[in-house]
Amino acid sequence: MDRKRFSNQPCPIAQATDIFGDWWIPMILRETLYGVDTFSEFQERLDISRNILNQRLKLLVDNGILSKELYQAPNRFKYVLTQKGRSALSILAAMAAWANQWAFPEGEHPIRLLDAESGEPLVPLVIDQRSGEPMEMKEIKLAPGPGFPNSKEALRRRFGIE
Amino acid sequence: MDRKRFSNQPCPIAQATDIFGDWWIPMILRETLYGVDTFSEFQERLDISRNILNQRLKLLVDNGILSKELYQAPNRFKYVLTQKGRSALSILAAMAAWANQWAFPEGEHPIRLLDAESGEPLVPLVIDQRSGEPMEMKEIKLAPGPGFPNSKEALRRRFGIE
Repeated sequence: MDRKRFSNQPCPIAQATDIFGDWWIPMILRETLYGVDTFSEFQERLDISRNILNQRLKLLVDNGILSKELYQAPNRFKYVLTQKGRSALSILAAMAAWANQWAFPEGEHPIRLLDAESGEPLVPLVIDQRSGEPMEMKEIKLAPGPGFPNSKEALRRRFGIE
Repeated sequence: MDRKRFSNQPCPIAQATDIFGDWWIPMILRETLYGVDTFSEFQERLDISRNILNQRLKLLVDNGILSKELYQAPNRFKYVLTQKGRSALSILAAMAAWANQWAFPEGEHPIRLLDAESGEPLVPLVIDQRSGEPMEMKEIKLAPGPGFPNSKEALRRRFGIE
């Protein structure tokens, strides 16, 4: 893909952006929540070219988010969320919660998340696990963690900071 | 911008993707967590062209995520998160949590989120607010909510479903 990549940055937001910062990715993952798992279904529902869909599915498979499984020999495949992919649905849930809050009037959400087992509504909320409080109430800053590269040159090149 | 738009879909994931599905958007918002608020600082730290940065900041202002404020007459502006923008940081937090979990070994996170007031680590987790359980443990499906368009034609056109 002819686009800016951020996968060289030792930053989780850059890493996630490298995948989710492509508009087709969340849309493809959304479709899995409607039970879509074949190339032709993704293509029909997303109004996406075969070429682009192929690239994006490959990116998701290469990144371990979807697994490509043969369901009918010789060449019928389905795309199934891996554990990493299921974990990424939390990002979609956070996106849905934000947009339902800000793009649609209270009580008029066009699409809801439901628990597939119980049928009960799911109401996603991003909290700070330590305090239990909504992240939205926190003043967030970013700081180097234990895995941050310890060369000054790497720091300067990657983040523009000393 | 010459790209696919999803803002015509009555779906919160599509609405959020319309903004966050552009790789510069989460990166610009990330920079605000380092205290960046001027055009020249964004440009220097993100290695982005003036033209593209200008477009993306305008998109964020037009969508009410950043507010453009004069801080020194006649033409020095800064970009400040609105309440809607602060709320969108929850999406970044979910992205950071996911990538820290999957892209970096346990205990070696290169970047951590901290509470700017207390300096304590913040550990983002997306939960279902009703049950208190992590969204990751849920089997999610999507279904029309109270604000879903009730014309069959609109449904067919937008989602490919009856």
